[in-house]
Amino acid sequence: MAEEKLPTRAEDFAEWYNQLVVRSDMADYAPVRGCMVVKPYGWALWENITSWLDAEFKKTGHVNAAFPTLIPLSFFEKEKEHVEGFAPELAVVTHGGGEELEEKLAVRPTSETIIGHMYAKWIKSWRDLPVLIVQWGSVLRWELRTKLFLRTAEFYWHEGHTAHASAEEAIEEMYRILDIYERFCLEEAAIPVIKGVKSETERFAGAHTTTSIEAMMWDKRALQSGTSHYFSTNFAKAFDIQFLNKENTLQYAETTSWAISSRIIGAMIMVHGDDQGLILPPRLAPIQAVIVPIFKSDAEKNKVMEVADRVFAELKAAGIRVKMDDRDNVSSGYKFNDWEMRGVPVRVEVGPKDVEKGSVALARRDRPGKEGKTFVSQTGLASTVAGLLTEIQASLLKRATEYRDANIHEPKDYEDLKRIVQDGWAFAYWCESRECETKVKEETKATTRNIPLNQPKGEGTCVVCGKPSKRKVYFAKAY
Amino acid sequence: MAEEKLPTRAEDFAEWYNQLVVRSDMADYAPVRGCMVVKPYGWALWENITSWLDAEFKKTGHVNAAFPTLIPLSFFEKEKEHVEGFAPELAVVTHGGGEELEEKLAVRPTSETIIGHMYAKWIKSWRDLPVLIVQWGSVLRWELRTKLFLRTAEFYWHEGHTAHASAEEAIEEMYRILDIYERFCLEEAAIPVIKGVKSETERFAGAHTTTSIEAMMWDKRALQSGTSHYFSTNFAKAFDIQFLNKENTLQYAETTSWAISSRIIGAMIMVHGDDQGLILPPRLAPIQAVIVPIFKSDAEKNKVMEVADRVFAELKAAGIRVKMDDRDNVSSGYKFNDWEMRGVPVRVEVGPKDVEKGSVALARRDRPGKEGKTFVSQTGLASTVAGLLTEIQASLLKRATEYRDANIHEPKDYEDLKRIVQDGWAFAYWCESRECETKVKEETKATTRNIPLNQPKGEGTCVVCGKPSKRKVYFAKAY
Repeated sequence: MAEEKLPTRAEDFAEWYNQLVVRSDMADYAPVRGCMVVKPYGWALWENITSWLDAEFKKTGHVNAAFPTLIPLSFFEKEKEHVEGFAPELAVVTHGGGEELEEKLAVRPTSETIIGHMYAKWIKSWRDLPVLIVQWGSVLRWELRTKLFLRTAEFYWHEGHTAHASAEEAIEEMYRILDIYERFCLEEAAIPVIKGVKSETERFAGAHTTTSIEAMMWDKRALQSGTSHYFSTNFAKAFDIQFLNKENTLQYAETTSWAISSRIIGAMIMVHGDDQGLILPPRLAPIQAVIVPIFKSDAEKNKVMEVADRVFAELKAAGIRVKMDDRDNVSSGYKFNDWEMRGVPVRVEVGPKDVEKGSVALARRDRPGKEGKTFVSQTGLASTVAGLLTEIQASLLKRATEYRDANIHEPKDYEDLKRIVQDGWAFAYWCESRECETKVKEETKATTRNIPLNQPKGEGTCVVCGKPSKRKVYFAKAY
Repeated sequence: MAEEKLPTRAEDFAEWYNQLVVRSDMADYAPVRGCMVVKPYGWALWENITSWLDAEFKKTGHVNAAFPTLIPLSFFEKEKEHVEGFAPELAVVTHGGGEELEEKLAVRPTSETIIGHMYAKWIKSWRDLPVLIVQWGSVLRWELRTKLFLRTAEFYWHEGHTAHASAEEAIEEMYRILDIYERFCLEEAAIPVIKGVKSETERFAGAHTTTSIEAMMWDKRALQSGTSHYFSTNFAKAFDIQFLNKENTLQYAETTSWAISSRIIGAMIMVHGDDQGLILPPRLAPIQAVIVPIFKSDAEKNKVMEVADRVFAELKAAGIRVKMDDRDNVSSGYKFNDWEMRGVPVRVEVGPKDVEKGSVALARRDRPGKEGKTFVSQTGLASTVAGLLTEIQASLLKRATEYRDANIHEPKDYEDLKRIVQDGWAFAYWCESRECETKVKEETKATTRNIPLNQPKGEGTCVVCGKPSKRKVYFAKAY
């Protein structure tokens, strides 16, 4: 960790973010254009994210599989909208084994095409349905402007691909997954999200319906944090996924796909972080509590380390992800800053006075300085820390929810909308025409985020054109 | 599953393998040259393999991280032997985002180069060492002759990459990992392996020392099942990985790398499988026990399903990976064949007579037919099945070990060696010259597998040239 302070969020939010990702040891820039290296600390966080999601997918009947990284270019051309959406972003393999390839291959930007090809081979009868497969891995999109975690050429994700016998089942699956994504954000990432349907222009290339969860970052920009798509029979027709139904008639399958990517890590950083660094939600933090022993003399060291070691063993035995910082080449103050930068939820300080008093100091990361520091008994410390972690988790979600809600406004008119989206989200009736959406985008840079599933009763008039409108939408600038 | 029988192993081992991999639902051919799709059943097996290894690596202080899939071509040229070894196998990305790239990129065939580049940036002081990083993912090598799991263009693996302050520590790490690989094969895969050092010609491109574990397949060919390399300072010099040691002097780091890939699944198939299909070791099998309810009338069905459901719940509660086969469109005989093909270790049959008697039939996959079938009480069934799984696991290892040992011979002379390697392994003194090794390879197609760590006392004479020799080596035809 460098000694210099981070810029504050208010000074330069983009620079705060860029420095923080690297200095907190989450990720680094790779020597390949637009790519990142996810460092062990960042990957441990990603593993905690993926293991929760993987368990939920398995509970709901999904299984994992692996499809090739390389996809024949011709596959993309089978679905018209899909190729238009992805062709400009492809990285293309033209040579293999020293020879030019007859059929060029794309490094997968997403796998609907190759999975569709295999499903056509595997799915013959209604008895083969539903197929509920998830692939964990990375994909590559040739992005021009990149930002670690938020938008990198290669990124990490899962992609779910399911095939069903009816539209009802496929749509139900799309929403089942959206619910899992919402629960993940609320319960694990402590990020409040809004579930809704994307507008036609914001839809995934080739989808019939795209749903998303949208979150507000500290700078009040929106981040699309997960998507779940219903394809109707678009991909089934493009790849000839047909099955004999119970009436013994050939029928196209109804398919879905859905994903949460490593950009969710960027969301956690931008929702919870403060001017000292990261604040990681306890349920996902690779290190939930760090112990910093404090001493000057060797005599003090012996006494302090005895208690610190015991505390370490107790917390570990209680299932808390705990780390002992016994570095002897940096000061305690340096250690405090270092772990604050890395967002560890709880710091346990053990000093000579604590040894005498049978106490330790607990500092909670979400309330910096004296306000967040308490002295507690060594007795029952594991349950005290566990309780504090639960409290921090709830507190982060509450704070993020209040912040978001305070920054969503309902515009009186179009002029008001233009003002609101400069520093918040506008929630307004919209006629769902492309014209009004484009006008807002061109004049304010705000886009429609989603049409929330949870709608007020009644109807209204479009905030842009004044026509009668049935549903409200969120407008916001977005990452 | 098709109705046709597999060819027997004796009839056509290669065809037996190729059909079995597909018909057991482990993998399928991808529409990309030399690539495979690992289907859910195969991937569940791979997940059981990876979760054991991942836990062992973490216990020994390793952490996971992710480096880019694409590596600049120029990186390969920094280590002379490495580029010679890998250049002919690279898949090359020449275009990205619709434009020709200035710097061409390879889809990684292995990641020493890009990880070495990052280590040079991260490692500054002895305090930064050791670095013990593992990457899980896939790599791509443009192979000409491919075979599912055993040799595919893209395959799945972990690659460990470590950096140390001294040669001793790096060599210790190489052997620590080799021991973990051996334990994995013995305890989990039920495959006996021989740990040893590879000859100079069989070494990894750029390594100082390559160690391996070697296993014997049913056709008596050898399969290199895992490798662990010590690079000395070769890669550190190529990528400038230097650190200030405790004496404040700049020194090159000592590095290692190591891997087990998805070909280990091929090994399990070829070691344990029989003419009916797969036999999966219980500790790794995605399904450890399958329940087949047997009935004719609806009245029988009600009674049988009541018991079958209770048995299912009991086995599941005991932590056994159990599956209920309640398909109503295929016969019991079809189900038996199907689960035998897929290698499920234990079949639990519940029929009307079992309901009356309070029994079930247990059929163990490793002993087909009546010999492996017993009738046991429904009472305490979970512990009966758990015990049987343990017994099967031990029995598979014992059988494979006896088979291997019975097919390793010590040649009297060179003529004897030529005979032995046509249908077994030869274990003989070798002078360690490239000439003798090449002679054997050209005249018999057998290669040196490894010089085992466990050597007899004393010395001997080279089986090829008769010169005094210190160590014995295994010669065998290999995959």
